[in-house]
Amino acid sequence: MKREDVLMEALPYIQKFHGKTIVIKIGGHAMVDPNILETVIQDAVLLRYVGMKVVLVHGGGPEITEKMKAMGKEPKFVAGLRITDQETLEIAQMVLVGKINDGIVSLIANCGARAVGLSGNDGNLLIARKMDLQKIKIGDVEHEVDLGHVGEIEEVDPRVVHCLLEQGYIPVVAPIGIDRSGKSLNINADTAAAELATALGAFKLFNLTDVDGVMNADRSRIYHRLKLHEVEAMIEDGIIVGGMIPKLLGCMKAVGSGVTSAHIVNGNKGHNLLLELFTDEGVGTMLSV
Amino acid sequence: MKREDVLMEALPYIQKFHGKTIVIKIGGHAMVDPNILETVIQDAVLLRYVGMKVVLVHGGGPEITEKMKAMGKEPKFVAGLRITDQETLEIAQMVLVGKINDGIVSLIANCGARAVGLSGNDGNLLIARKMDLQKIKIGDVEHEVDLGHVGEIEEVDPRVVHCLLEQGYIPVVAPIGIDRSGKSLNINADTAAAELATALGAFKLFNLTDVDGVMNADRSRIYHRLKLHEVEAMIEDGIIVGGMIPKLLGCMKAVGSGVTSAHIVNGNKGHNLLLELFTDEGVGTMLSV
Amino acid sequence: MKREDVLMEALPYIQKFHGKTIVIKIGGHAMVDPNILETVIQDAVLLRYVGMKVVLVHGGGPEITEKMKAMGKEPKFVAGLRITDQETLEIAQMVLVGKINDGIVSLIANCGARAVGLSGNDGNLLIARKMDLQKIKIGDVEHEVDLGHVGEIEEVDPRVVHCLLEQGYIPVVAPIGIDRSGKSLNINADTAAAELATALGAFKLFNLTDVDGVMNADRSRIYHRLKLHEVEAMIEDGIIVGGMIPKLLGCMKAVGSGVTSAHIVNGNKGHNLLLELFTDEGVGTMLSV
Amino acid sequence: MKREDVLMEALPYIQKFHGKTIVIKIGGHAMVDPNILETVIQDAVLLRYVGMKVVLVHGGGPEITEKMKAMGKEPKFVAGLRITDQETLEIAQMVLVGKINDGIVSLIANCGARAVGLSGNDGNLLIARKMDLQKIKIGDVEHEVDLGHVGEIEEVDPRVVHCLLEQGYIPVVAPIGIDRSGKSLNINADTAAAELATALGAFKLFNLTDVDGVMNADRSRIYHRLKLHEVEAMIEDGIIVGGMIPKLLGCMKAVGSGVTSAHIVNGNKGHNLLLELFTDEGVGTMLSV
Amino acid sequence: MKREDVLMEALPYIQKFHGKTIVIKIGGHAMVDPNILETVIQDAVLLRYVGMKVVLVHGGGPEITEKMKAMGKEPKFVAGLRITDQETLEIAQMVLVGKINDGIVSLIANCGARAVGLSGNDGNLLIARKMDLQKIKIGDVEHEVDLGHVGEIEEVDPRVVHCLLEQGYIPVVAPIGIDRSGKSLNINADTAAAELATALGAFKLFNLTDVDGVMNADRSRIYHRLKLHEVEAMIEDGIIVGGMIPKLLGCMKAVGSGVTSAHIVNGNKGHNLLLELFTDEGVGTMLSV
Amino acid sequence: MKREDVLMEALPYIQKFHGKTIVIKIGGHAMVDPNILETVIQDAVLLRYVGMKVVLVHGGGPEITEKMKAMGKEPKFVAGLRITDQETLEIAQMVLVGKINDGIVSLIANCGARAVGLSGNDGNLLIARKMDLQKIKIGDVEHEVDLGHVGEIEEVDPRVVHCLLEQGYIPVVAPIGIDRSGKSLNINADTAAAELATALGAFKLFNLTDVDGVMNADRSRIYHRLKLHEVEAMIEDGIIVGGMIPKLLGCMKAVGSGVTSAHIVNGNKGHNLLLELFTDEGVGTMLSV
Repeated sequence: MKREDVLMEALPYIQKFHGKTIVIKIGGHAMVDPNILETVIQDAVLLRYVGMKVVLVHGGGPEITEKMKAMGKEPKFVAGLRITDQETLEIAQMVLVGKINDGIVSLIANCGARAVGLSGNDGNLLIARKMDLQKIKIGDVEHEVDLGHVGEIEEVDPRVVHCLLEQGYIPVVAPIGIDRSGKSLNINADTAAAELATALGAFKLFNLTDVDGVMNADRSRIYHRLKLHEVEAMIEDGIIVGGMIPKLLGCMKAVGSGVTSAHIVNGNKGHNLLLELFTDEGVGTMLSV
Repeated sequence: MKREDVLMEALPYIQKFHGKTIVIKIGGHAMVDPNILETVIQDAVLLRYVGMKVVLVHGGGPEITEKMKAMGKEPKFVAGLRITDQETLEIAQMVLVGKINDGIVSLIANCGARAVGLSGNDGNLLIARKMDLQKIKIGDVEHEVDLGHVGEIEEVDPRVVHCLLEQGYIPVVAPIGIDRSGKSLNINADTAAAELATALGAFKLFNLTDVDGVMNADRSRIYHRLKLHEVEAMIEDGIIVGGMIPKLLGCMKAVGSGVTSAHIVNGNKGHNLLLELFTDEGVGTMLSV
Repeated sequence: MKREDVLMEALPYIQKFHGKTIVIKIGGHAMVDPNILETVIQDAVLLRYVGMKVVLVHGGGPEITEKMKAMGKEPKFVAGLRITDQETLEIAQMVLVGKINDGIVSLIANCGARAVGLSGNDGNLLIARKMDLQKIKIGDVEHEVDLGHVGEIEEVDPRVVHCLLEQGYIPVVAPIGIDRSGKSLNINADTAAAELATALGAFKLFNLTDVDGVMNADRSRIYHRLKLHEVEAMIEDGIIVGGMIPKLLGCMKAVGSGVTSAHIVNGNKGHNLLLELFTDEGVGTMLSV
Repeated sequence: MKREDVLMEALPYIQKFHGKTIVIKIGGHAMVDPNILETVIQDAVLLRYVGMKVVLVHGGGPEITEKMKAMGKEPKFVAGLRITDQETLEIAQMVLVGKINDGIVSLIANCGARAVGLSGNDGNLLIARKMDLQKIKIGDVEHEVDLGHVGEIEEVDPRVVHCLLEQGYIPVVAPIGIDRSGKSLNINADTAAAELATALGAFKLFNLTDVDGVMNADRSRIYHRLKLHEVEAMIEDGIIVGGMIPKLLGCMKAVGSGVTSAHIVNGNKGHNLLLELFTDEGVGTMLSV
Repeated sequence: MKREDVLMEALPYIQKFHGKTIVIKIGGHAMVDPNILETVIQDAVLLRYVGMKVVLVHGGGPEITEKMKAMGKEPKFVAGLRITDQETLEIAQMVLVGKINDGIVSLIANCGARAVGLSGNDGNLLIARKMDLQKIKIGDVEHEVDLGHVGEIEEVDPRVVHCLLEQGYIPVVAPIGIDRSGKSLNINADTAAAELATALGAFKLFNLTDVDGVMNADRSRIYHRLKLHEVEAMIEDGIIVGGMIPKLLGCMKAVGSGVTSAHIVNGNKGHNLLLELFTDEGVGTMLSV
Repeated sequence: MKREDVLMEALPYIQKFHGKTIVIKIGGHAMVDPNILETVIQDAVLLRYVGMKVVLVHGGGPEITEKMKAMGKEPKFVAGLRITDQETLEIAQMVLVGKINDGIVSLIANCGARAVGLSGNDGNLLIARKMDLQKIKIGDVEHEVDLGHVGEIEEVDPRVVHCLLEQGYIPVVAPIGIDRSGKSLNINADTAAAELATALGAFKLFNLTDVDGVMNADRSRIYHRLKLHEVEAMIEDGIIVGGMIPKLLGCMKAVGSGVTSAHIVNGNKGHNLLLELFTDEGVGTMLSV
């Protein structure tokens, strides 16, 4: 492909996205491989360069587990779900806010842009409440399990993010919420990104994950463009199954609440973020109304 | 070359040029071939899309000559220089302002942007005075030749251009000046573009012409980057000769007066404008301090 | 009349009109007599001086005809209506934009104000579509006549005019429209002025013509103030007849669409523009709701 | 003279004075004849109408004397100078602020504009200090006379006037100053107007008095335009004598401190204010640098 | 009580009231005792210091009566109501505007703030109309009494007050209104304060009087907080009687029209204004919806 | 002391400090006793309430040591100085940013204000470089000790703090710097607070510590007000000794660089912050030029 053709294809998108807000969820896998993380950060800084307002949301499960082990604290699980007791929460918070978040901010500074790390209590960004008991079947018996200090988002106050975006900063958000009495709660990062995109009136929500997008049953092809009602039908019809469903739920809620499009893209492949944004066909799956 | 590499090379330029002013002189050749003109206009509109402030300056010699002939008016020349009498001036003005300029404005509208045509009396944009008698040797005798209604620029009032750029318009300027008593004068388009770029405090001046740039003696390679003092030396040393010199003079004056860089690029080759702006090496010659 | 009485009568009008927009149609007759044109321009510049936002719209029929003849092109008419073929359009455009419009702009510069010439494609000012076939009776037979490249206005984008007025310029508009595909069309100047006044939300529309205003049957007196419904009745009752009707139609449409008043004034009599604006009785006919 | 000629002469002045500040001192004579005062106020309101920023300063000697007599208080004089004891000051203040000033404000309201009455303590407008003892010769003996509560201006804080002018009000100022401890002092109105004009950076200072302007020795003609140095010479040479000198001193000081021109005009003749401002020759004397 | 406790109690109120408008009516008693007036002014200036927008309204009955006597004018009363003939009005205006109002402005200047005195004609602040004839029973016969130049407020134009507050001034308002023809009218000061508070959209209206607030029947305790409907009931039930009722009527009207709270406080006791504002319990009676 | 006296003393300070920036260093002791911390936060929120721009800087030495021990990492010291190896730095960062800083932000949210936690890499707030080797005498031998990942501040970019203050947030800063390559460095909190106050052009710097202020030799009295040169003399004369000197150095540098005053106050005693700010005498030591 000729350079001028790439440019002529890309330039109208660059114009269209100028000044628009994009929320990018960086999955846990990116955290483990520094090359992947750096490529994603590089792309995010380029987007900021061409005038987009970029917000990053990150997770950090693997590192939390690792740090817990280093501190001699055994992670507890019930039916595969992590139980977050007070000590686990404190470690999670220290790792997410004091290590991963701070690390991403420094990486962005290194790429020549300016970032500010936030967690959910900064400017009351993510107000949450403790999650209800979860009904879980173990064998034939349904148990009510208390996941501990885990929250679901009640309210987002996006003003601190708007204010930083206006001044040219890249806000980097750790998925820790705060309840009305000032206590911290662990939040699912996919959900945090989707709620934030909605509250910000974002133009796009990106979920950088480790699969290429929504695929058909035999995984022979990717659906590059899907409408909300198509996804709903495909879930109902059992075409979309397994781990993709929870990833899609946040995207669907965001798109249903005014975010123009949500994208599921493989973040492990170099610069997919740029290719999804600035080429006609894209590389992952774009979901819109 | 991979798409992502083109994008990663181009994006920092796009950021760097955002909001910057670029004055593009479109040569007479582009006026004759509608495909070339359309390609140039397309590129100019894309530049406007990605946030540059684009100003076009055009010439129109061939069409003026043609129209004069159609009206039964024989062009007069002395030693190769056109003599602009009152009738010639009127025809030139009608062709430049009422036909070419108006045509470019419509072409831009067709590409989805908004343009406004200007000539030098609009907002007193180009204040000129009648050129002094020219000393010309015919044989051994030096004659003083009066070129007629031809002017040199005394003062540029760029406010109308600034005002239109601020509102997102592409100003398209015809090279007709106005003297202090309100009379029109024909102006050289290269000079008009250079003076305008200087008065606007433009970031870049582009001279789209029909050669590839400044080349070495045997025309085996292009000089892609030249400093002002290098060009001065090359002219003195006779390395740069002929028709390239007058083209360079305007560029040199602009660069010497604060325009960051001036570019001589072959406008006849598709999308050279984009390639010169958004690739590391460029395709033509860039002149800077 | 004593000076102080003239001043005391005028000053409240000057205050009342400060910052208000006035669209002035200058008829073809003014174009032919340079003294008349200069008086009108002088008055227009004075209005700009005392804070009015002045927009000029001009015609140019006689000069177009003259230039066509000079170029050996015979004007064609069917039942008195001019047929505008491609060549006629090109000549009309060159004369209107490249000669008359440019000349008015220079005249204004000469009077110490700053003007900018516009035609309908500048900033997509006048979007038009080709006029339908006209049904014309020749003898007893009704013919459908194609007037050629003649348009009627579909949409006015007044932003470029607003932007220039805000910066203190006097926009001078040539009656050339542009269709959705970028092609030029000839437009009736009275209609252009009325549509422009409406789109601008102008305070006043002036039609400077060669009669003194709307007169009674025996032409013994002028109606200085008329209401819309009165004019409608007078047309229906056959009191107003002939060439005055088309002039009134644009005024009536403008006044009916929010322009506060429209004036029909004899532009050939010195400074009638000032007298109509700044005296209690006026000199021509003022039409209002 | 024809209406259009008056208008064409006046309009450029109206433009030139638009947005400019004019301080008008209304003399005591105007206060006594309601017709004269009303004409002056009418003119002042018209000036406000055409965009000037009008400030009025008034005196009130005759009414103070009259009110003192009504209250059985005998005015005291030493060698022709009024002695302002505490009781006299209180009466002066009540008459100037509570009667004359308030009356002018109501008169302006009646003419359709909005005014605000001020005295020197409003916003610390006129900070004054008690005047030094005056050396006065009575017969051959020089006495030092204490004029009582009479002040000279030390500092003007024009912010309250600027703020009211910006909002479209006509400030009406009574010549009462305030000293640093908050006590009131009587101030000469000519001086107050001149100091105020200087502090405001006014364009013009008008002294409406009961003579036609500065005249030559045999009072056969008025000097319509005088330069500062000419007036100085004429005073030195004894051409200007008597009561005109103190009137001129304030004007000279104002013009010497940046006020563009000061005018001495007969306020008793109808609408002289307009004629002095809006005609080429004027009616009184204009003093400039 | 410890200093820090006073501060911690006060600071939240200071924040809450920041930028809010408070209209303070200063009763006639404060005018008679200079110590009381000075304490009130000191407090008002402190409120301005901490960011409140303070407006003062004053009366002046006792001084008017005194001055009338000094001028040999006998006050006339019918059934206890003062009859304001033309001469009385003139004296009232001179005393209120030229003496009391001016005195308060100087006092504020002395405390280090900047004030501007206003009466009802300044900026058409208080437009009033002559009061209807009052029906008054003398013995068994009902008489219709003409109170003379006494007005009731028809319209308040608060712009001049807003404009002065924005610039940091303390407006001081004398209770003189102006009718549509520009004539002055005497206005009740309680009413003027209440109407002004309503028109300004004030946060609080203070009536500084000479009783401690609304008390119960045996005057053993003050009602510190009352709702509008409670006051209405208490008046109906005869619990609130006598002179308190007219004071309450203005407060009730203001609170009913959007003023957040109205306060009746004893202005004779030092700094009650501060204690009512900045302590939890307050010292007088607060009326709210 | 009477309430009104406390208020009248405090209100002028409240006005004076309105909109001013105050940087408060909270010492490690406050971190250990939750009551002390809460009192300090309460006061800080009240200051924000009355319009001050509050910035908090905190340390955290004791908690870092405690957490290191919990993780089985033995703190290393050379001659009493902590050596910060990579692991220590990571723990320090997690504790300071992910625990202490986050905790203060939540506490502020709980008190009804909005805070944002920052560390030195957020918006490149604190650019530092690795500290030079420290020359330390152990016995008679001078050793060069490498303290490890400890930095001194090279540059402060206060924009992110300004931007948050403008929007009403309380920035809470952890003493972690970032070097030019993006690596974190431990910073002394006293120094960070002083440098930040200087870069912000703060009005006041508060060092809340565990002594009452600068005292005389026998600790019988506090110096409430000291000038810069007095402190310099007292250090030279050995009157001020020991741990107070390093605390004073930051304050002296800040005051010498434009901060109006620096205060050393005992943060362990309830509400000393308010008493130092809002009473005439204060409770600690105020240092000014």
